[in-house]
Amino acid sequence: MSRPGLILKLSCPDQPGIVAKVAGYAAGHRGNVIEFNQFSDQLGGRFFARMEIETSDLDVEVEDFIDGFGTLGRSLQATWHFRRLPYRMRAALLVTKTDHCLNEILWRTELGELPLEITAVIGNRDNCRGIAERSGLPFHRIDMDGPRRLEGFAEIRELIEAQDVELIVLARFMQILPDDFCRDYAGRVINIHHSFLPAFIGANPYQQAYARGVKLIGATCHYVTPELDAGPIIEQEVERVHHFHTPADLVRLGRNCERVAIARGIRYHVHDRTIIDGARAIVFPD
Amino acid sequence: MSRPGLILKLSCPDQPGIVAKVAGYAAGHRGNVIEFNQFSDQLGGRFFARMEIETSDLDVEVEDFIDGFGTLGRSLQATWHFRRLPYRMRAALLVTKTDHCLNEILWRTELGELPLEITAVIGNRDNCRGIAERSGLPFHRIDMDGPRRLEGFAEIRELIEAQDVELIVLARFMQILPDDFCRDYAGRVINIHHSFLPAFIGANPYQQAYARGVKLIGATCHYVTPELDAGPIIEQEVERVHHFHTPADLVRLGRNCERVAIARGIRYHVHDRTIIDGARAIVFPD
Amino acid sequence: MSRPGLILKLSCPDQPGIVAKVAGYAAGHRGNVIEFNQFSDQLGGRFFARMEIETSDLDVEVEDFIDGFGTLGRSLQATWHFRRLPYRMRAALLVTKTDHCLNEILWRTELGELPLEITAVIGNRDNCRGIAERSGLPFHRIDMDGPRRLEGFAEIRELIEAQDVELIVLARFMQILPDDFCRDYAGRVINIHHSFLPAFIGANPYQQAYARGVKLIGATCHYVTPELDAGPIIEQEVERVHHFHTPADLVRLGRNCERVAIARGIRYHVHDRTIIDGARAIVFPD
Amino acid sequence: MSRPGLILKLSCPDQPGIVAKVAGYAAGHRGNVIEFNQFSDQLGGRFFARMEIETSDLDVEVEDFIDGFGTLGRSLQATWHFRRLPYRMRAALLVTKTDHCLNEILWRTELGELPLEITAVIGNRDNCRGIAERSGLPFHRIDMDGPRRLEGFAEIRELIEAQDVELIVLARFMQILPDDFCRDYAGRVINIHHSFLPAFIGANPYQQAYARGVKLIGATCHYVTPELDAGPIIEQEVERVHHFHTPADLVRLGRNCERVAIARGIRYHVHDRTIIDGARAIVFPD
Repeated sequence: MSRPGLILKLSCPDQPGIVAKVAGYAAGHRGNVIEFNQFSDQLGGRFFARMEIETSDLDVEVEDFIDGFGTLGRSLQATWHFRRLPYRMRAALLVTKTDHCLNEILWRTELGELPLEITAVIGNRDNCRGIAERSGLPFHRIDMDGPRRLEGFAEIRELIEAQDVELIVLARFMQILPDDFCRDYAGRVINIHHSFLPAFIGANPYQQAYARGVKLIGATCHYVTPELDAGPIIEQEVERVHHFHTPADLVRLGRNCERVAIARGIRYHVHDRTIIDGARAIVFPD
Repeated sequence: MSRPGLILKLSCPDQPGIVAKVAGYAAGHRGNVIEFNQFSDQLGGRFFARMEIETSDLDVEVEDFIDGFGTLGRSLQATWHFRRLPYRMRAALLVTKTDHCLNEILWRTELGELPLEITAVIGNRDNCRGIAERSGLPFHRIDMDGPRRLEGFAEIRELIEAQDVELIVLARFMQILPDDFCRDYAGRVINIHHSFLPAFIGANPYQQAYARGVKLIGATCHYVTPELDAGPIIEQEVERVHHFHTPADLVRLGRNCERVAIARGIRYHVHDRTIIDGARAIVFPD
Repeated sequence: MSRPGLILKLSCPDQPGIVAKVAGYAAGHRGNVIEFNQFSDQLGGRFFARMEIETSDLDVEVEDFIDGFGTLGRSLQATWHFRRLPYRMRAALLVTKTDHCLNEILWRTELGELPLEITAVIGNRDNCRGIAERSGLPFHRIDMDGPRRLEGFAEIRELIEAQDVELIVLARFMQILPDDFCRDYAGRVINIHHSFLPAFIGANPYQQAYARGVKLIGATCHYVTPELDAGPIIEQEVERVHHFHTPADLVRLGRNCERVAIARGIRYHVHDRTIIDGARAIVFPD
Repeated sequence: MSRPGLILKLSCPDQPGIVAKVAGYAAGHRGNVIEFNQFSDQLGGRFFARMEIETSDLDVEVEDFIDGFGTLGRSLQATWHFRRLPYRMRAALLVTKTDHCLNEILWRTELGELPLEITAVIGNRDNCRGIAERSGLPFHRIDMDGPRRLEGFAEIRELIEAQDVELIVLARFMQILPDDFCRDYAGRVINIHHSFLPAFIGANPYQQAYARGVKLIGATCHYVTPELDAGPIIEQEVERVHHFHTPADLVRLGRNCERVAIARGIRYHVHDRTIIDGARAIVFPD
């Protein structure tokens, strides 16, 4: 992601010739296609693509290249988006008590695996303050218990808007988002749910998993929508468990799944490898 | 499973000294413990064990060894069961249209992986007749559509009773068992459900999985209870899928999960490696 | 694979504009791209693609469409191949004693998962005769022990040539192929090796795995080259094992890996989803 | 591990009655067996067991309980070891440049997953100083390049001895240990190797994996012995990779395997869940 370039993400009604047209536009301006992923959904009748191009040899300005695509995009009745590389996405991380997902995201960001510019860590408890501040990140404690709930979300909104946040990560944030929040930030809020969705929606999924006696537990990284734990799934991960594992053991073992799933989910989103398609997510993994 | 020996399966309220007492009984009669598995459930307060012993050096008759255990078993308030080795379990396989689970069971039985004595393949359709008869097994077509449903199950019962069947395997049998059938054969009916339970209970789980956009599909082998797809889980298996997989692809990919899960589930059951504990199953895998 | 269409497989030196040119050729003749996979190897400087197109609306004959591509292909210095759909690949299966891979291939072929036209099952032992003939396939016993080795391979060649075989599957065939055989049928011989290559090359890999105390065993499906077990890998599969598993247990557990790996490997090859690139194989899975 | 108790680890020649004797000793003194794992190696003729007992109701002092076992232990010709709970194992972590394994160990130790008392982080480079000191741990830089190699190892020994270190973890330590070091600390040095051993022994395993075109990469946590990367394996983990993954991608993806494998390996060792048996390790996982 460090080379100068562009990522194009596009979806449109399927029809013959789209690959040629889209790739042809890039080639026509000497854009070098590094990676091209497409999906022609034979069932849904839609076309989805992600194209990553090097722009060093473009015969026009990058701005003009992007603008010029509009004619083609509109003729395809497409929804599309260009992102300039290199970039880092401005992100706010929302947490409550447990810190393993936060730790994972911070560590991978420092390592360069996740191109994030973390503008804030926001907690409705103080548990994660230490780990955030140790990494030099501002920690915002926002109370939202009981009657303060909506007020709390209003404060979060304010912060997010003030900081131009593009991505909101619920890194084990134990509050249900208000519907209008979900709608206003649709496609920009990623959650990690500590079960293999759609099994064990809601509270205490590990306790539920224990009671049901499942032989595999999991974690699900998904986009947040107003319906609880029902948004498009980006990534899932599972781990084998046995009868001798207590709910506390499931919590311990599940942390691995959660960390891997959220890290991959964020990576795919930030690299524009996801396209939301109704209740599902197209994902072109790397 | 081919050596002369015994398997003891036991559960009882937990208390200190059970391992010593149970193993001591075997040692006291020169039984050689080949494998000993125990689980002290600290949460539920119960003790579970499986002990496999060689009996060639026993200082009493096997029959007397088994009878003599009664005093200890009763003093522990235990439920227990002895099985003599070698043995093959008499089993009836119930099928409808798809044959991959049936094929897997037949193949593993011929190979010696599953010590089954298959007494009958019963189908409410004729699709699996060929594969059953090709393996030299009697195929019973029992109609159970619409008004014939209960009559059909009565015929199945009759057959099962006449053949002294110990294990009933629903190898993709597309009929819901009547409550009394489930109760009368509790712990003796194993089903394969083509989803990662408790997700996607009921009909068309692959279609449900597609609609939900999950990134892993699965299969679940479980004991049958009156509540649909809610019995104790013996084994689960998953496989990664992608957005480009249609429901038909999920059916194809899921077959692997189903075959592996049902084969392992049957093996664990037949080798007395499972103990039902309420809604859960203790499983000591091999 | 049942729709009328074409699969194009292509590799060439990388350069800007290839996607546009290749897709453009199809679009220029009203070929509808169903699936397009590409890989620009930034390290090796080569470009690889697989394109599947519907041909029902082509504005030229399929033959002319294929011929006409030559101009573009040559200008790209490409190696390419077109395959007409639907098709079934003529295959010979070579076996020795164990039948699980053979059984898997036959079953999946009958099911339609593997579009094979199996012309012959060839064994240097008689063990698999039954299973082959039960499926209505001709079984050829060819002795190749000791001094008969080269003669045996000559007979295999004769059979293969007479039957116009396109694909040779070593489904647990326990003979090392002569170098010239490997060279003459390069890219057309698929083997299943019962280890996670490059670990445990050669004989008795499960015994080797047991001695080394590995915690995962595996199987590898690969193209055969003159160097033993060193050809391009198409697929690998692993399974967790424990200290209590004997070499015989590893054989039992490994069969699952072998069956899945060879079935997937054949499927990818037959659907033209593999491109050999030196010691490696590009694989676009479905 | 926080309850007062004892773990017994034992191995001896197999013979009938061992389970009864060992469990009987505990029961005879009112020790409550929480968990009992045994393995009768039918091939090697040895018996291995791990027994975890609560000692709150013992009818003798814990010291006397341990001493008293000697009579039984000697009569079984056993090697055995008792560990008192709760405890934390004194450990030194050796590192070079990469910090992901170190980060994982520190994080899991803080969380309570790994009951370690980390006495020192030792590096032959300064890269990991920051992360160690941020966690409040002393970082010792010991140069060992070229001619300073043996001197460096002497300094490590000195430190380890002075600090009464029980466990030495090579958390991506890029130096080969001298033979005498391996021998003197046999069974107390754990390494993480960044490949699926025995594949890709030695340097640059990810580069080797890329060149070989494997479809799964892995990591191996093992005890260190004088022969390079050949010690008893405690844990292995794998991850699926594709042709488009560069060696740098494999490094990135492999970090997950390494972190999981080393964390589990340390946990099993510290909880006395491993018993070395020649070139293999018996592992009773939790």
